[in-house]
Formats: sequence, structure tokens, C-alpha cells
Amino acid sequence: MTTLDSPRETSNADAVARDRANVFHSWSAQAALKPLAFAGGSGTTIWDYEGNEYLDFSSQLVNVNIGHQHPAVIAGIQNQLAQLATLAPAHASDVRGTAAEKILAHAPANMSKVFFTNGGADANENAIRMARLHTGRDKVISRYRSYHGNTGAAIVATGDWRRIPNEYARGHLHVFGPYLYRSNFWATTPEQESERALEYLRRTIVAEGAESIAAILLETIPGTAGVLVPPPGYLAGVRALCDEFGILLILDEVMSGFGRTGDWFALDAFDVVPDLITFAKGVNSGYVPVGGVIISEEIAATFDERVFPGGLTYSGHPLAAASIVASITAFEEEQIVENAAMIGRDHLGPGLLALAERHAVIGEVRGRGVFWAVELVADRESRTPVDAAFMGAVKAQLLQRGLLPFIADNRIHVVPPATVSAEEVASALAIIDEALGAVTGARAAA
Amino acid sequence: MTTLDSPRETSNADAVARDRANVFHSWSAQAALKPLAFAGGSGTTIWDYEGNEYLDFSSQLVNVNIGHQHPAVIAGIQNQLAQLATLAPAHASDVRGTAAEKILAHAPANMSKVFFTNGGADANENAIRMARLHTGRDKVISRYRSYHGNTGAAIVATGDWRRIPNEYARGHLHVFGPYLYRSNFWATTPEQESERALEYLRRTIVAEGAESIAAILLETIPGTAGVLVPPPGYLAGVRALCDEFGILLILDEVMSGFGRTGDWFALDAFDVVPDLITFAKGVNSGYVPVGGVIISEEIAATFDERVFPGGLTYSGHPLAAASIVASITAFEEEQIVENAAMIGRDHLGPGLLALAERHAVIGEVRGRGVFWAVELVADRESRTPVDAAFMGAVKAQLLQRGLLPFIADNRIHVVPPATVSAEEVASALAIIDEALGAVTGARAAA
Repeated sequence: MTTLDSPRETSNADAVARDRANVFHSWSAQAALKPLAFAGGSGTTIWDYEGNEYLDFSSQLVNVNIGHQHPAVIAGIQNQLAQLATLAPAHASDVRGTAAEKILAHAPANMSKVFFTNGGADANENAIRMARLHTGRDKVISRYRSYHGNTGAAIVATGDWRRIPNEYARGHLHVFGPYLYRSNFWATTPEQESERALEYLRRTIVAEGAESIAAILLETIPGTAGVLVPPPGYLAGVRALCDEFGILLILDEVMSGFGRTGDWFALDAFDVVPDLITFAKGVNSGYVPVGGVIISEEIAATFDERVFPGGLTYSGHPLAAASIVASITAFEEEQIVENAAMIGRDHLGPGLLALAERHAVIGEVRGRGVFWAVELVADRESRTPVDAAFMGAVKAQLLQRGLLPFIADNRIHVVPPATVSAEEVASALAIIDEALGAVTGARAAA
Repeated sequence: MTTLDSPRETSNADAVARDRANVFHSWSAQAALKPLAFAGGSGTTIWDYEGNEYLDFSSQLVNVNIGHQHPAVIAGIQNQLAQLATLAPAHASDVRGTAAEKILAHAPANMSKVFFTNGGADANENAIRMARLHTGRDKVISRYRSYHGNTGAAIVATGDWRRIPNEYARGHLHVFGPYLYRSNFWATTPEQESERALEYLRRTIVAEGAESIAAILLETIPGTAGVLVPPPGYLAGVRALCDEFGILLILDEVMSGFGRTGDWFALDAFDVVPDLITFAKGVNSGYVPVGGVIISEEIAATFDERVFPGGLTYSGHPLAAASIVASITAFEEEQIVENAAMIGRDHLGPGLLALAERHAVIGEVRGRGVFWAVELVADRESRTPVDAAFMGAVKAQLLQRGLLPFIADNRIHVVPPATVSAEEVASALAIIDEALGAVTGARAAA
């Protein structure tokens, strides 16, 4: 019998074999999977069972914003673990109230309550539920280039391929959003892209019937879809359309929140105030599963006398709450958001743009803070994405050089922890430089 | 600034005030909430910030099967916390593989893989997804008296009132299940109830078109609906119907699994083998949020070459996995399942039946292991449920005497941890006896 009190000697091969024998994986065909095994980490570094280290420029699933094994967050969880690990949501505990209080302290002024969930998907499920009940309307508009989670409504709100086999929820429709590099609006400037995206959204609202639309649900900066930073005026324009038509605005900050963009929330950089904010990932760097909805005073008041018909066993889980309190406190004390902003402005942004000068395969670089996408194209004129084999070769070259990347379609998402140092960024940039050179060189020689 | 490194002095009133100022609660109108505050616990006991102790006969939300703060589970989490708190699901880790291995060791022999989720709701979401993709069919049949979770498909699979404001998923229909005390089939014996429920299910399958039905989703023993132990032959009969019509059987063991019924899974007591099992709660007593789907070899093979279109950031979370390994190991070493069976057989079952002899307000007592419902009725002839005011008075009397109960509709669910002792059961039975006497006495005097 194996217990974790006496950790056995494990090789990478053992850990992978045990995984392949027993664990069913997300978003995958199972037979061909060859997972990497990981045993530990610290800050931006993660290592396997044989001591091989990698710079984690994936932040796992773009969620380890505070880096691996931050001592204050580990201590916060340990302390709560020693007191009370679990508590039903109907009861009150100081740590749960404090976690909500600390989240609200960094949210827009109109926000008044936090509803805790287990992750980003059920955060969006519950935000959609609140919007429908508050407005008495059914439909939810979201974007084609988006991901909002894997459960019933969240996966149909999602725009990307993951929605297609899962369309069992009604009341969802999708629009194109601004993405100048591959414009859906025949636009040539950011201003034109913004204006046309808004005009197209207005036409859709009118054609659908504004009185049938409960909410517009947007990732403030679409993440997995490609770090699509909205052009000037777009989010303010969506807010204005919502106000005009009595529609609620839900901003999904699951990936973009808590320092990822160099702000507490990505929305802080734009002139927009939502009605509901969903969060997960960066709120506690995934040390304990958690997510939630930040609720405006107006919407919270809807459920003062009326029963809110949603809930879950682990809502406001004590260990999750403790990790949130400790993580936000560390963010404040160590100026982690400021570090992410500085890294993006002075190191990662300029460094990636310099790489684009040297590599014709880079079609566009975009991002903020520690939230960047490098889009790779077969040629810059046609902007044709490189193929999956090319990306596979890039990934292999990066791993071989000790960089754990986040790859999505034809893009490298450069998404280290918000605690990353300038030196680690310099190392990563050098690795990306070499990897791109090796793949394009091999292709040119072939 | 508050950190958990230096716990402040907190009163119950402070904790409740902080909760009410910041936290939005599940399944409630918010204005009138008066939550109890809890600071710590040990085994069957939980206490507030002022040292008042309660016997936790709710197991919180019927999930703390191993009792509060079990030292081996706390240690297991602490050890993993010191190594690596978070890891993306695409990677492998020894603790994740071991957690799946230990779950499979107690599951039926046809089960081959575990897909980890964050809780019971997304476990059911993903089981439904697997069933639809495996069969190529749409519809899911579940029962009116059921609860399957709060997200898009899970809440519409749910039969109780919580479904009604949330009907945004398609492809669900509901049937009546066996419940002899309030039979939907004009039955008078358990055998008749079982036969008629199966005949009604068969007629529904045929009328709907068997070729349109992907799965039948059942709580093995419906929990929140009233601990409705299925009569002889019912589950075997459902399995036979599934086989006859090419329908998959999903058993929801979220509340009933991992010792609750005095078996590892509630299904162990019945002659039935499902295709998919969903779990959460008791698998780790909620010490870390987690759930999952146990997948048969046949269904897992469907996704060997075909992409499974579902997944989530925290799937197979290291702390959750560590808590599962530690909890199942403790269950094995301390014979916790056997304790639950003994308690049900020798103490809780006989004790509740003895209370029914003394209190005419008890209409029926039913259950197994540490999973019991005591149904209260205005009179035994009509079986009319007592009203909400009566249940409120019972709850107040129980709390006043130091028992934290689980109240649902007109029922006291007597659901202590599976580690509960005979002495604790005796104390609880005495409290329930006194509380019922006080409330019925006061009513009679009024």
C-alpha cells in the first residue's frame, strides 16, 4: 500500500505509466497521449521526477500567476488546513468573508458581493443564471473566438471548436469580435475595427430583438483564442450598447484577472464597468480549485428577497478562501501586479517585438503584462497560419531547451507567472529565438 | 491588513457580519440569512468561534464521510502542498495516477479510467457528454425526485424544484421512481412498486423512442430527495432495460458513495453494474474540492482515437488527488466502511425505528449505513408532510441541544460521518427524541 506519508521513489516513466493506466485526460484522444511528468516547482521553475528543470512560461493553464509554491500561499493553506478544511456554504467563516472582502477591494466600485464556485466554468454558469433572472430575458451573446468553460451553458457560450460537439444548451448566439490581424470587418486600422465590430454587434442586437437578450458575455481580453487585446473604444462601446438596450455586461476575467495583464483586472485598462465579473485561475494561482462571480450591488439586490436558484457543495471552500486571502495579500505586499506591468512594458513586449524583427515566421506579437501571443505564419503577406507539424517542432525545440510553453493553434502564448524576473524573461526569449531559428532553418534546408 | 499567518480574535458575530457583507450564498434569498459561524472541528464534532460545540449529524452537505480534520488526510494534503500544489491536467503526476488507481480498486470490475472534475455537477456534465458521444443519441432520462448538480445540463437533469428556473438545456426528460411511502404507481408492496416503476420506465422509453435515448442517470439512492432506498429488483431491472435498448446507465454516487451506505459504493448492495459512475463529496470528504467520472473500459475506448471534447483547468488537482489517496487509505486501514455498516445495522437504524415507536409524527424511517431519513407527517393516516414552521422549530430545538442537523423538506436526514461512534449516535438519538417531544408537546399545548 502506498501513502504519501512515505513518498516512494518515482521515475518519470513510472508516473507516466500510472497516469496512462488510470487517468482520463481533458480535450484529448487518449491513446496517443505522452504527458510530461512533473514532481515539484518553485517560482517560474518546474521540475520532473529526475531533476530536469523547465522555465514554466505556460503558468500551467495560464493560472499560476504567483509562481509555483509561493511560501505565503502555502502557509495560508497550511494554517487553515490545521483549523478546518471543509465547511458547508450555508455557514459562515471568517476566512470566507475575508476572501470575498479582499477580492471586492480590487474590483470596480459598483461591485458588492462574491459568489464562490469551483472554477471558471461554473462561475460563468452562475453569472449567466443571474443575468437571466435579473433581466427576465433568455439570450446570451458571446464571441466566436472565446472560451468560457466546459459545462452545459458555459461550453455553448464558448465560441471555439469545443462548443460544436456540445450544443445542448439553448439561448446562446455568437458574434465576431475585433481582431484586426484577421479582421472580420474588412478594416485596416484599430479604430475602424472597433467601430465596425460595434456596428455589427448593434445590428445583431436589433435583429435578434434587444428585449430577448439578457447579457453580453466577453473575455475582457480573449485568452486561449489568441490574447486579442481589444482596440480603443470597443469595450466602452459594448457597455454603451448594453446600457441603451437594457442588457447586462458580464466580463470573463478567468484568465485575464489578478495580475495577468499588469493590472488587477484586465478591465482596469479600459473605460468599462461590467455588471458581473467571473474569475478563477489567477485569484489563487490554482493552488486550490476555486472560481467565482463578483456581483454588482444592483444584481445582488435582486436576490435579497428572491431565492437564487444556484449553488454548490464547495462554494467558499475554506482552503480555497485561505489561499485567496494569502495570495492577494502577497500580491499587495510584493507588488506583483506592478512587476507584471513592468515586465510587459520593459522586457517581454520589447523582447518579443525584437524577435519579430529577426524571424519572418512571426506574423504578429500582441499582449500586455505577462499575457502575450506570438502568431506564427507561413508568410507575412497571406498571414496563413503555420501548420500543426510546424508547431509540434517548435514545441519540441522549446522543451529540449528547458522552456515549458503554452501552444494554441499557430501561436506561442508567452504567459509566465506575474512574478517572473527580467533575467528569466531574457533566458526565455533566447530559447524562443533559438527554437524558431532551428525549426525554420531545418525547414529551409529540407 | 489581515493575514491568516496571525489569526485574529474573531467572534461569531464578526464572522457572520463579514460573511453577510461580502458573501453571496447558494440556493437562498440573501436578505434574511442568519448563518451559523464555525471555526474548527474534529471527527463528528464542530465548534464555533466561541467554543460552542455541535455534533455534526449533517456531515456538512452529507460529504464529510471521514469526519472533520482526520489527521491522515490533513497530513496527505500537507505533504503534497510542500511538493507541488498545482499542475495542469495535460501533465502526469504520481499522486494523480495513484488517486485514480485507488478509486478504481473499489469500483466494479468493468471500470478502467477516472476523469477528475471539480465536483459532482461537472462530473454529471461530463458523464452525460460521454454517454451522448458514445451512443450518438441525445436524450437523458432522470428522475423527478433527484438532484444532479447546479450547472447547465446537471441542473436540468435534476428533477426537484431547483430545475424549474434553470431549464436552458435540451434533451432531458424525467420519470417517477420507486418511493413506496408516496407511491406514484398505486402500489402497496415493495415488489409491486419495483415492478410498476420498471413497467412505467419501459413505456416511457418506448414512447420516447429508445434510439433517441443516450442514458438513464440515477442516484443509486436518491439523497436530498429523501434517502429513497430502491426496492428489490429495481436497479437490476433498469440495467436490463438499458441492455435491451442500447442505453447507458449512469449511477450518480456523489452523495451515496465512499462509505455513506455502509458499502464503498451504494451500488455494491444491489445487483447492478453501471457504465459510468459519478462521484465527489465522500471521496475525500470535501477537504479539497473534487469530483469525477469512473469510466467503463468500453466507453473509455471510444475516446482512444477520438478527441473527448471536455476538460477543465483543475482536473486531477494535486491536493485533491493527495486527499483522495490519504482518505481511501484511511478508509481501508481503519475499516471505516465497515464501521458505517455496523452503525447503521446495530445503532442508527434500530435507534431511529425505536424513536418512531415513541413519536407519531414520524411517518417513515429509511436508510442504510450512515444515510437515513426520518420523514415527519402531520398524521400517519394521510401522510401529510409537516409544514415548514414545524421543521423550523425542530431545527431550532436540535441546534439548541448541540446537534447540527440536515433538514430537507419535511425530513430530518440523519447523516453523520461514517466514522461516527455508537456513543455519538446514542447522544444524537436522545437529542432528536427530546427535540421532537418539545415541538410536538408545544404544538399539543397550543
